[in-house]
Amino acid sequence: MIEVIALDGDDTLWHSENLFVDTQDRFRDLVRPHVQVADDVLDERLLDCERRNLPLFGYGVKAFTLSLIETAIEVTDGRIPGRDLQAVLDLGKVLLDHPVDLLDGVREAVDALTDSYRVMVLTKGDLLHQETKVARSGLAELFWRVEIVSEKDEATYRRILERHEVDPATFVMVGNSVRSDVLPVLAISARAVHVPYSVTWALEHADPDPDLHDFPVLGSLAELPACIAWLDGGT
Amino acid sequence: MIEVIALDGDDTLWHSENLFVDTQDRFRDLVRPHVQVADDVLDERLLDCERRNLPLFGYGVKAFTLSLIETAIEVTDGRIPGRDLQAVLDLGKVLLDHPVDLLDGVREAVDALTDSYRVMVLTKGDLLHQETKVARSGLAELFWRVEIVSEKDEATYRRILERHEVDPATFVMVGNSVRSDVLPVLAISARAVHVPYSVTWALEHADPDPDLHDFPVLGSLAELPACIAWLDGGT
Repeated sequence: MIEVIALDGDDTLWHSENLFVDTQDRFRDLVRPHVQVADDVLDERLLDCERRNLPLFGYGVKAFTLSLIETAIEVTDGRIPGRDLQAVLDLGKVLLDHPVDLLDGVREAVDALTDSYRVMVLTKGDLLHQETKVARSGLAELFWRVEIVSEKDEATYRRILERHEVDPATFVMVGNSVRSDVLPVLAISARAVHVPYSVTWALEHADPDPDLHDFPVLGSLAELPACIAWLDGGT
Repeated sequence: MIEVIALDGDDTLWHSENLFVDTQDRFRDLVRPHVQVADDVLDERLLDCERRNLPLFGYGVKAFTLSLIETAIEVTDGRIPGRDLQAVLDLGKVLLDHPVDLLDGVREAVDALTDSYRVMVLTKGDLLHQETKVARSGLAELFWRVEIVSEKDEATYRRILERHEVDPATFVMVGNSVRSDVLPVLAISARAVHVPYSVTWALEHADPDPDLHDFPVLGSLAELPACIAWLDGGT
């Protein structure tokens, strides 16, 4: 018997990773005049920097922006001038201020689900930025709760379910990341639905063993109400 | 009848603003070789930058670090070299990784209060950083709940109290900021206790009208248990 459905935000409710991909294109254009570096090498250096900074910075656009600045300084041996670093910083501001672009079918799916279930947002990233995106999504009034967390691991899911007095047996998590939205949820004996996005950030990659893990994979959120009805014992 | 006591984090449970003051000293040392600017002018430029970025960045060390970088580029007309901007960025990392230094009497006060009340942390700033500070404080197991919010206004206090099913009449907020910890709490008909810190960040300054607002002001958190007993109808 399903009672609570939690939806991830970035790349599940609204587009996000495509904006980061565009930003990295512009980042390369800003760095390229100051150093000879292949695109894939620059991308790798940025990813290394993000991975290294993750324990201290956490997720989100501010962390990403600081790593962009650090990478630009590192790969150019400090030769990139201040005005170009300001342009790098401004890329982060554009991301933070970007309009929220819902994925296809999201509004209809959330609308349909709220008839029978409590629907919450459970997302990670910058606190203010994620709150702003929920507010700008036009869906805020449909959500029972909004939880923004610093990491999506088993301990986090346990804490959130306990805080809202939700039995894991009645909980379904829905999101685009197998690593963050699926595996830790299955590990606490709740259910999860995977809705892949066209791009996955390298630090979100996961490779679950199909013999160990079994979960529905949908083409889009439009398929979610039918999937939930099926999980909930309907047909 | 008091049931829930919420404690602010930065400059109420642990030292914070003094670290920002030290950081600004080091920031001036990094900028000074590249531009002739008086200390108070540089401070004012930084504060303007923080104020301008606040709606987009929110509170916390990552926002502060980005504003330090932006200010350094602006005041030097982009002349500050990359290696010095990396040093500015590293000031932010030092802040994020700094050990937690509890204020005097905090552990004893929290210990005493948890005998009779549910005690929570209610703080604003970077999500991961504030969580890390709670964990490093050694007090985590004493707290009923930890809430990290993007802003401390009336709407936030209403939402938090509703979420935890706390009647405002039974709630007391304790913190060092009149603007964030006292005035919005009084406005929702709950009670507040002010425990000033030696330094107040310019953007937290408030000037309440003493004819309109009446709240206890303590010298340190050590005085809190007696104050709460008095508020709770004891002697």
